[in-house]
Amino acid sequence: MSFNTFGHLFRVTTFGESHGPAIGCVVDGCPPRIPLTEADIQPYLDRRRPGQSRYTTQRQEPDAVKILSGVFVDEVSGKQVTTGTPIALLIDNVDQRSKDYSDIKDKYRPGHADYTYDVKYGLRDYRGGGRQSARETAMRVAAGAIARKIVPSLTVRGALVQMGPHRIDRARWDWAEVDRNPFFCPDPKTAAMLGDYLDGLRKRGSSIGAVIEVVAEGVPSGLGAPIYGKLDGDLAGALMSINAVKGVEIGAGFAAAELAGEQNGDEMRMGNDGKPLFLSNNAGGILGGISTGQPIVARFAVKPTSSILIPRRTVDRYGRETEISTIGRHDPCVGIRAVPIGEAMVACVVADHYLRQRGQVGGPPAWPLPAAPR
Amino acid sequence: MSFNTFGHLFRVTTFGESHGPAIGCVVDGCPPRIPLTEADIQPYLDRRRPGQSRYTTQRQEPDAVKILSGVFVDEVSGKQVTTGTPIALLIDNVDQRSKDYSDIKDKYRPGHADYTYDVKYGLRDYRGGGRQSARETAMRVAAGAIARKIVPSLTVRGALVQMGPHRIDRARWDWAEVDRNPFFCPDPKTAAMLGDYLDGLRKRGSSIGAVIEVVAEGVPSGLGAPIYGKLDGDLAGALMSINAVKGVEIGAGFAAAELAGEQNGDEMRMGNDGKPLFLSNNAGGILGGISTGQPIVARFAVKPTSSILIPRRTVDRYGRETEISTIGRHDPCVGIRAVPIGEAMVACVVADHYLRQRGQVGGPPAWPLPAAPR
Amino acid sequence: MSFNTFGHLFRVTTFGESHGPAIGCVVDGCPPRIPLTEADIQPYLDRRRPGQSRYTTQRQEPDAVKILSGVFVDEVSGKQVTTGTPIALLIDNVDQRSKDYSDIKDKYRPGHADYTYDVKYGLRDYRGGGRQSARETAMRVAAGAIARKIVPSLTVRGALVQMGPHRIDRARWDWAEVDRNPFFCPDPKTAAMLGDYLDGLRKRGSSIGAVIEVVAEGVPSGLGAPIYGKLDGDLAGALMSINAVKGVEIGAGFAAAELAGEQNGDEMRMGNDGKPLFLSNNAGGILGGISTGQPIVARFAVKPTSSILIPRRTVDRYGRETEISTIGRHDPCVGIRAVPIGEAMVACVVADHYLRQRGQVGGPPAWPLPAAPR
Amino acid sequence: MSFNTFGHLFRVTTFGESHGPAIGCVVDGCPPRIPLTEADIQPYLDRRRPGQSRYTTQRQEPDAVKILSGVFVDEVSGKQVTTGTPIALLIDNVDQRSKDYSDIKDKYRPGHADYTYDVKYGLRDYRGGGRQSARETAMRVAAGAIARKIVPSLTVRGALVQMGPHRIDRARWDWAEVDRNPFFCPDPKTAAMLGDYLDGLRKRGSSIGAVIEVVAEGVPSGLGAPIYGKLDGDLAGALMSINAVKGVEIGAGFAAAELAGEQNGDEMRMGNDGKPLFLSNNAGGILGGISTGQPIVARFAVKPTSSILIPRRTVDRYGRETEISTIGRHDPCVGIRAVPIGEAMVACVVADHYLRQRGQVGGPPAWPLPAAPR
Repeated sequence: MSFNTFGHLFRVTTFGESHGPAIGCVVDGCPPRIPLTEADIQPYLDRRRPGQSRYTTQRQEPDAVKILSGVFVDEVSGKQVTTGTPIALLIDNVDQRSKDYSDIKDKYRPGHADYTYDVKYGLRDYRGGGRQSARETAMRVAAGAIARKIVPSLTVRGALVQMGPHRIDRARWDWAEVDRNPFFCPDPKTAAMLGDYLDGLRKRGSSIGAVIEVVAEGVPSGLGAPIYGKLDGDLAGALMSINAVKGVEIGAGFAAAELAGEQNGDEMRMGNDGKPLFLSNNAGGILGGISTGQPIVARFAVKPTSSILIPRRTVDRYGRETEISTIGRHDPCVGIRAVPIGEAMVACVVADHYLRQRGQVGGPPAWPLPAAPR
Repeated sequence: MSFNTFGHLFRVTTFGESHGPAIGCVVDGCPPRIPLTEADIQPYLDRRRPGQSRYTTQRQEPDAVKILSGVFVDEVSGKQVTTGTPIALLIDNVDQRSKDYSDIKDKYRPGHADYTYDVKYGLRDYRGGGRQSARETAMRVAAGAIARKIVPSLTVRGALVQMGPHRIDRARWDWAEVDRNPFFCPDPKTAAMLGDYLDGLRKRGSSIGAVIEVVAEGVPSGLGAPIYGKLDGDLAGALMSINAVKGVEIGAGFAAAELAGEQNGDEMRMGNDGKPLFLSNNAGGILGGISTGQPIVARFAVKPTSSILIPRRTVDRYGRETEISTIGRHDPCVGIRAVPIGEAMVACVVADHYLRQRGQVGGPPAWPLPAAPR
Repeated sequence: MSFNTFGHLFRVTTFGESHGPAIGCVVDGCPPRIPLTEADIQPYLDRRRPGQSRYTTQRQEPDAVKILSGVFVDEVSGKQVTTGTPIALLIDNVDQRSKDYSDIKDKYRPGHADYTYDVKYGLRDYRGGGRQSARETAMRVAAGAIARKIVPSLTVRGALVQMGPHRIDRARWDWAEVDRNPFFCPDPKTAAMLGDYLDGLRKRGSSIGAVIEVVAEGVPSGLGAPIYGKLDGDLAGALMSINAVKGVEIGAGFAAAELAGEQNGDEMRMGNDGKPLFLSNNAGGILGGISTGQPIVARFAVKPTSSILIPRRTVDRYGRETEISTIGRHDPCVGIRAVPIGEAMVACVVADHYLRQRGQVGGPPAWPLPAAPR
Repeated sequence: MSFNTFGHLFRVTTFGESHGPAIGCVVDGCPPRIPLTEADIQPYLDRRRPGQSRYTTQRQEPDAVKILSGVFVDEVSGKQVTTGTPIALLIDNVDQRSKDYSDIKDKYRPGHADYTYDVKYGLRDYRGGGRQSARETAMRVAAGAIARKIVPSLTVRGALVQMGPHRIDRARWDWAEVDRNPFFCPDPKTAAMLGDYLDGLRKRGSSIGAVIEVVAEGVPSGLGAPIYGKLDGDLAGALMSINAVKGVEIGAGFAAAELAGEQNGDEMRMGNDGKPLFLSNNAGGILGGISTGQPIVARFAVKPTSSILIPRRTVDRYGRETEISTIGRHDPCVGIRAVPIGEAMVACVVADHYLRQRGQVGGPPAWPLPAAPR
């Protein structure tokens, strides 16, 4: 990962600001001959899109993605497929509402990156948050849609498992429920409470944090690498790179600190498919940085939206003390829309490691091993 | 980060297995003319070294580091300094106790990477855990000692803040206490309990997890980059790459999920030094992926040691179901020795970003900005 | 360099095919606060643009570049400047002449990458050469225009020094002449012959190779790195990556094979500016992979255009033997338009190393050194 | 390539100075289960080793390589094989002849990197050339020996084709001859002259340049990537990174500048093996940056040794004008020993691209393609 590029063999470079003409990305290293049209990408963007319920920002962006390069209609199949060359994706910014920025442009919103951009670069594009806007994450979702097509049998799904004090009851987890409520919440009972809870927050001009869980199924065993190319290391870096994320955990995560060795280590038996069957998944599908073949389970914490109506003490870029109250279109809980983004980042990391593993090792070795001579 | 290399401008490549002839690393990209001898590195290795108390593995390794390259005695100052060329460090393995590996070499220890190495590579060096051994982390600590010298005024300190059910009382936090007990625990009252607690675990043949906190002070503001080069993204990847780590958080971390916007965003006033003064540090010193100048606060969860005496169900590499009980020299709480390792990883990430920031921007811009013309 | 990205701190990623909707690039890592508008880039694109004389392809492309991101109007200066975030550039493809590709789409043109794309990827975008088209090089020129602004006092100029049998007389070298003829030829006498020479080639349906020389002045001493980050190593990789380039040399280049040691090593005296004065420049401005402060001199050989009218024996993608004669708009000497491309690549490499040197070392050390104590 | 690391999936990091305790390298990303012992590497080091004839430096270094990590004895086969973890190699420096450096330590040898190291880093290890010594290339040769084992059927051979004014007659090319003379010269008649020629140079205290040609056979088609990951781009960078190299060319190289299109483009017919047969190889086995399956042919020019007895004008590090005459053990033609080094770099580049191609594409697509429907 370097500045605005992410991944090694499956590489994603994003660009664009919230209120510039467009945002976009370049996906490099995608294998050739994978069927790909805008219709493969758009549904994922639609899930992330703002303005779909009254619980997310009211900015109206169709987020219609265009593929600018890297695809071609294959003569034999008649399908549009990837060519192996870089795939550029572009989304025009449409709803850059003309606005008076006179307040925000000089003042630093607490919890926001306004100050750090200024102190790093000496200036910032303050319109709608510029590069720090969550708008950049649309391109992660688009890239993730391509990543999903690279690893056969990969399924990546996410869900909101906590919002403020409201934690789901995992016994009620229902993946189908996730798409039935505007919160990506897998527990219908918790979901039923969240609307009123968010309405209350908004009336107070406040916001709230959340925890998102992403589960990747169908990940082949053997992805990752021992030391600095660990699958969980790359997942942690990728998820922490999402705006507003303050924590990442894999499998048992922080709860592992309270587990004894015999509680934590996942015991193994032989499954009917000739592969090991793990009797639990505290590892979250990763041991020693390498995938076990079990589902990969990652969770991340999203802090509350920093742009709130409640007035806060701050300073401006000229070193003067002042107050700020942010009026505008903001998600009261940015964690909600982080669900498809988290899924996308996990998909990108898995796809990258899938290609890296294929590169180094070529194909999975025989397992179980032939018995050693005695 | 790629396989066994870590960092961009300050790059660390480690090598070596637990029971091979030696372990080592190459530190590339270190600035020239920094005074450096083995005496700058050895104290950090000594803190991580096994066998120093009865609460860590009894393997006896002097861990005496040798500098093989990249230093020279400067004529003018008469001091040995870095030359800007790669610094290779080597530690001979001394106590590779001859041992019967007949049990461990075929069986997969639950919670260990035995299976994933076999299924990825088709074989593994089982002696003492091979490459997956915590022995590799000695080289991280050595590299970290060099990293500490790169950023002027940087101080990185770590502490154990939780072991199993025992959490410290933060009101009693005393940095001086950390070096007074064998647990790196900053709270003397909690520290006093941990010895008996660990003795009990060991008698039962069990082990326990922990949470470590690392605080970096003196980090200049402006380090990091907006999207995939975020300082917290790189910290998360670096800390998660340490053996047995299952979770990473920055600042308020997972607790941020329960905070309202007005509780979380750190308010600002002007300090006497002409720089902003934050009234709290929920951000953990990082906003938008860029350092604020406040202390950087990172925590990570370490799972319990997987090699335990209590028998566990497992399979072997030939696909046969069996049991395993790991006899040998193991830390009952690997989290203890993770303290100097976590410090080292934070120091390496900060040093890398310090050089990257200097590369892109050249030097800090003027702040506060000159007032704009009206 | 990895697939479609080039550089380390100053990173350029290009995308797009000859006959897709657009070509573009993302420039990442550019320092902030550098004045930049389209007007800084367009003149360089105009020099490379096809259809400007009858000696280059008659494809009509305005090559009007748009900046999509990474710039903002600085309040204090009132100028549009870089922000430090990625700069995306886009050029719409306009003259994708509708054409019958029935011949070229199945047959492999000798000397072209048609076969290698098919055998690597299993398909290719054959329209106008797809990704292998020289059209991609427009984005290198655009990125180079930005690179030129990064290194203070850098001047990069190129010239055609040989076309087929016609070599310039270096005694007549006149930089001003380069822009007075359509061949970028610095020798007016040679330039005067090239028009008729090319007309003759075109009548025969043939094409010809060329040698280009690029000179970079104002390169600070100390750029580069000893082993694999050598300035000349990166220049060689960058120039060889230009379409149709088959050779690269620095300074005396291949002629050095015939030089004796006392002829080759550039002697040194002290200059009036307190810096060493080299009495010759066989090194081409680089010793041990590090810039000396002298002008950097690089030359590269460009093979003749492979798409020619003269019929050639070949095979098609279905394994059938056949003949091909390429009708269409082609440069009879692609070397001509390689001049601005070569300049751009040199500028990008120098800018990248300028930032890398600043990152590792921080600033030039004092030289001459203070005298050592006796 | 970054400072001291080279390659993407097959990565080589070297370290060490001429007169430090040892030189070494870390080879990361090597596929697992490749048989490897010191005996696979040593013969290549022996070919490069100094002191083997009176035409190379008389420094006596056994260059005995030790493998420190990354190998293990596979139970099933009983062979020592790679494990997929980093392979560290170490060579002790033995003959660091104690010497009076009082002259060389302050003065800059013309043609040498003495000045550029000082002006970049502010100091240098002057003993035997420090990091700029050709000694570092031993580790390239060692890494190359591993690279050769990665690509099935790969053969990489090199030869000296020119020394000063003496060019070989290609009609007399005999690979077997290369190992029969101390110059790696494939033409026995030319080889017979070179001994006397070098004796004459040495008597005069001079040195001479050379041209080396490396041919890689058995390279699968499809390796490389279109734009910045071109196989020839990476070869050029790799070969130019060898000490004293001033030019690189592929296939027809600089001679292509004089070729007409119909002379240069290699015509194709179908071979008996169902693959295209090229009727010539001006491309040097690479089209569009991607291997064709033909032999890869690369040549590079090596400048004369800069350390010569003939006195030369120079300056010292304190800015004083002076003269230098380098007494010591130096190759009169460093080009000779560049032959095994060039082979190694080509092998490393091919191995890296072999793994990268396998990563991105997975395996070669079917060729010829199934006929398109009409």
